[in-house]
Amino acid sequence: MRRQSKLVAKVQQALKGNLRVADCPSRSVLDHVTSRWGSLVLLLLLEGTRRFSELAREIGGVSEKMLTQTLRTLEADGLLLRTVYATSPPTVEYSLTQLGEGVALHVKSLTDWVEENTPEILATRSKRIGFR
Amino acid sequence: MRRQSKLVAKVQQALKGNLRVADCPSRSVLDHVTSRWGSLVLLLLLEGTRRFSELAREIGGVSEKMLTQTLRTLEADGLLLRTVYATSPPTVEYSLTQLGEGVALHVKSLTDWVEENTPEILATRSKRIGFR
Repeated sequence: MRRQSKLVAKVQQALKGNLRVADCPSRSVLDHVTSRWGSLVLLLLLEGTRRFSELAREIGGVSEKMLTQTLRTLEADGLLLRTVYATSPPTVEYSLTQLGEGVALHVKSLTDWVEENTPEILATRSKRIGFR
Repeated sequence: MRRQSKLVAKVQQALKGNLRVADCPSRSVLDHVTSRWGSLVLLLLLEGTRRFSELAREIGGVSEKMLTQTLRTLEADGLLLRTVYATSPPTVEYSLTQLGEGVALHVKSLTDWVEENTPEILATRSKRIGFR
C-alpha cells in the first residue's frame, strides 16, 4: 500500500511541469496567466461573467486587439468559456471554467499583495539615488 | 473611534495601487515579480541565499545579461538584498528581504498551481482542432 502510494506520487511528479527547465511548456502557461492583460482578465472574471465591451472598459489601457488575443489564449488553455447568445447582434460572454477559477484565486492573492505593497515599493525606489 | 477606523481604512485604500488603472505604478511591480526570470529568481531565493552563478545554473535558458537586469530590478524594488563579501575575487550573494519573502510566497502558490495543472492545460490545448 505504502509502496503503491509512493509510486503514484512518482508518476504524478513526472506528469508535472517544471518551470526551471528552459523548454517546459509550463512556462507558456505561466506567461498566459501573468501577462498584464491575462492577469487582469482573470481577476475581473473572478467577480463574474463579463461581455467583451465590459472587459475593454474595465481594463484601463488595453486595445481591442490585445484583449481579443488574450481571451483566445486563455480560452485555448481551458481557463475561460466563451458563450455566444443568438441575439441580434449576437451577445458574447466570457466566464471562468473551474480550472480558470483555480488559477484566478492564486493570481488574486498575488495581485492583492502587489496593490497593497506598491506604496512601500515606490518608497524604496525613490530612496535609491540613481540606479547602479 | 469607529469613525476614526473608517477614516484610516479610507486613507489606506487611497494609498493602495490599482492594477485596473492604466498608469498605476502597481503594474510595473506586477511585471517585475511575474516576469519569466523575476518569478524564478523569487522562487529560488525562497529556498535560500544564492550566488549569481548558482542562479544562472539553476534557471534554465537565462542569459547573464537578463539575470543581471532582473536582479537589479528586484533589488531596486526592495525585494532582494545583494551582499558583497570581500573575498578575492569578491563573492556576491542574493537573498530575499522580508518584503520579498512576502511576495515570493504568493508567487510560489501560483507557480505550484501552474506546474501541477500544466498536463491538464496541455491536454485541453491538444483537443482543440486549430485555433480560431
